[in-house]
Amino acid sequence: MLAEIITIGDEILIGQIVDTNSAWIARELNLIGIRVKQISSVSDDRAHILKALGEARERADIILITGGLGPTKDDITKKTLAEYFNVGMVENQEALENVDRIFKKYNRPLLEVNRLQAQVPANCEVIPNLNGTAPGMWFAHEGKIFVSMPGVPFEMMYMMESQVLPKLKASFKLPFIVHQTILTVGEGESFLAERIADIEDALPPHIKLAYLPKLGQVRLRLSGYGDNEAALHQDVQLWTNNFVERIGNVVVALEDIPLEKAILNKMAARGLTLSAAESCTGGYISHLITQHPGSSEVFFGGAVSYSYELKESLLGVNNETLWQYGAVSQETVIEMVEGALFNFKSDYAMAVTGVAGPGGGSEDKPVGTVWIAVAKAGKTVSKKFTFGSKRLQNIERTAIAAFGMLNTLLSEVEN
Amino acid sequence: MLAEIITIGDEILIGQIVDTNSAWIARELNLIGIRVKQISSVSDDRAHILKALGEARERADIILITGGLGPTKDDITKKTLAEYFNVGMVENQEALENVDRIFKKYNRPLLEVNRLQAQVPANCEVIPNLNGTAPGMWFAHEGKIFVSMPGVPFEMMYMMESQVLPKLKASFKLPFIVHQTILTVGEGESFLAERIADIEDALPPHIKLAYLPKLGQVRLRLSGYGDNEAALHQDVQLWTNNFVERIGNVVVALEDIPLEKAILNKMAARGLTLSAAESCTGGYISHLITQHPGSSEVFFGGAVSYSYELKESLLGVNNETLWQYGAVSQETVIEMVEGALFNFKSDYAMAVTGVAGPGGGSEDKPVGTVWIAVAKAGKTVSKKFTFGSKRLQNIERTAIAAFGMLNTLLSEVEN
Repeated sequence: MLAEIITIGDEILIGQIVDTNSAWIARELNLIGIRVKQISSVSDDRAHILKALGEARERADIILITGGLGPTKDDITKKTLAEYFNVGMVENQEALENVDRIFKKYNRPLLEVNRLQAQVPANCEVIPNLNGTAPGMWFAHEGKIFVSMPGVPFEMMYMMESQVLPKLKASFKLPFIVHQTILTVGEGESFLAERIADIEDALPPHIKLAYLPKLGQVRLRLSGYGDNEAALHQDVQLWTNNFVERIGNVVVALEDIPLEKAILNKMAARGLTLSAAESCTGGYISHLITQHPGSSEVFFGGAVSYSYELKESLLGVNNETLWQYGAVSQETVIEMVEGALFNFKSDYAMAVTGVAGPGGGSEDKPVGTVWIAVAKAGKTVSKKFTFGSKRLQNIERTAIAAFGMLNTLLSEVEN
Repeated sequence: MLAEIITIGDEILIGQIVDTNSAWIARELNLIGIRVKQISSVSDDRAHILKALGEARERADIILITGGLGPTKDDITKKTLAEYFNVGMVENQEALENVDRIFKKYNRPLLEVNRLQAQVPANCEVIPNLNGTAPGMWFAHEGKIFVSMPGVPFEMMYMMESQVLPKLKASFKLPFIVHQTILTVGEGESFLAERIADIEDALPPHIKLAYLPKLGQVRLRLSGYGDNEAALHQDVQLWTNNFVERIGNVVVALEDIPLEKAILNKMAARGLTLSAAESCTGGYISHLITQHPGSSEVFFGGAVSYSYELKESLLGVNNETLWQYGAVSQETVIEMVEGALFNFKSDYAMAVTGVAGPGGGSEDKPVGTVWIAVAKAGKTVSKKFTFGSKRLQNIERTAIAAFGMLNTLLSEVEN
């Protein structure tokens, strides 16, 4: 089953916004067994939209369209779709009530231009938009499905999850697919592959393994294809267990969630608390943690100790240690993490110090040199890493490696 | 002058990566007066690539292609281009030397498969790739320009900036364009528009003004079009001055750089230092600052004080203040910012505390309630904001508003 995605709107073509919708839609479609053949971004231009629709329907069975549904006159998706299907426009009662509801909520008068939001091509089935005024539209036309959705990401995502994906599954005979993610950290793709090569070779043909690597993390995704749902779940579960048994020490979660969220979940489940002492990551580790709702249950906070002075005053690092061994040293990172544990009174602490670059490197400690430590009462682990020359990548890699070390320390208790 | 962008590779179509290249390319092209007609993402499939090339050349004069240039056998862009142009492949000496240089640098043997990286279609002009092994390729074919570049962002960007954009400017008679960004913070788009309406109305036809808003920041971009370079620069400068004179209090920079970078630059130029006390932003403000090289000259660091305890121990906030007024209060934010200034010994400090959501709201202090304070010796300014219900947006808006307040405090000295 093939789909195409068409995004409509000049914002993407002038580079004002990055099209994140298409990647999200493509991933969701792939997960239910629909392949995306092409993604096209076209302008708010009648002829161009008509041509793109015609080209897409030649290649695909499902055409998903986002954007161009706003109330202003440069948004012409709806009337162009009506022209493409050769139908008129009608006012949809449900969509009108939705517009009315939203305007009431914000105490604003419903202008005639807003009322137009409820006008849709006569042949469509309306997909309610709980988060905005522009309705989604589902068209079944000459054996193909066309779906038009707003370009605002959270409006589109809600429609996809609640309406479009279930309707697509119901409309087509798609293979039954079961996915299982194994999130790992701390081992490179090729090393991981070597460790599980024999298990991978023994996989039955209806179960595929994909490696999804990203700067120090690797997501393993098992996908099982078949007709018998219960048997498939059982099969995928069995093979997942085989992999986890082999590489358990680097597994963080059996869910497709961010690394730090997986660690937060683990710690929350065990009632554990955490603090951080960050030098070269400059707040990034804390930010990764605190972007997740509920993180305050686990995370007390910490210090962003960019200067020597703050390493001393906030973390209690000895002035002598700093001057004798330098800020980027095993001695300093150990005092940082133990200072965080002691001062911030958390069960676990993590600390990082390094040369993020591009400046600040020396022969001894070139750009990319990073010391990381994690600690709990009675145990501190520290390790040196040598990353690359790019500042943002070094910051990202440091954070991931630190979470990896924390995960290992957390696992010890479990065993 | 019209261009199209074609990205080749399955990673985008399965949603594994977001295509950030196209937006970047589109922006760069627009800045030199080339409009992008369509962006298409297609698979590593010979027939599909050929069809996309054919469709694009019907619509555009310039076709920029990224991706599919790796050494593995699923990367087929080069041989498909050779087929499209009906030419053979040749080994390019310069490209071979580049591959050789890179392998020597990493002390790895040059395998036959790597040597193939230097093979290019016979009709192309090679664009050197200093950051990777895959050469870029420039084709002039039947009045159209085709450029093929790697999909790795920094390799592509370097090629565009150093080679492709200059060559495009030299190949086509493009209008001369001068852009000037005015970065503002703290005033909404519509209010800003009202304040400068009369100046905007008086703009001569060859100077356009664009509003580029983003969560509390607005970039004003003046673009002047003409033939006389010197006169155009002078004109744009004159009109920029008119706008800045009117709205100087919200102007941060006359460059198209991130807000926090503009503030860092200002502070570095004046030898000023900064620290931060973050509650609801959880390290995001520090991260924004420290992602920039050289930030350690200005930024000492700070506290991520998620818990009451850390607000007390790191910042010296009174226990009574916290219990009497709550963590999200004017009293607390003032003690936080003054505590940061005193404890961290910086010239300026910023502090934020709020309910980021989705949980933690109350009738008094609903989700989105945020207190922000900025301070220097002898002066503290605090302000309450009411943002929305989305956690990540609240974090982002809080950071931007805090930088806005810091900018205002910094400006006072200037006057």
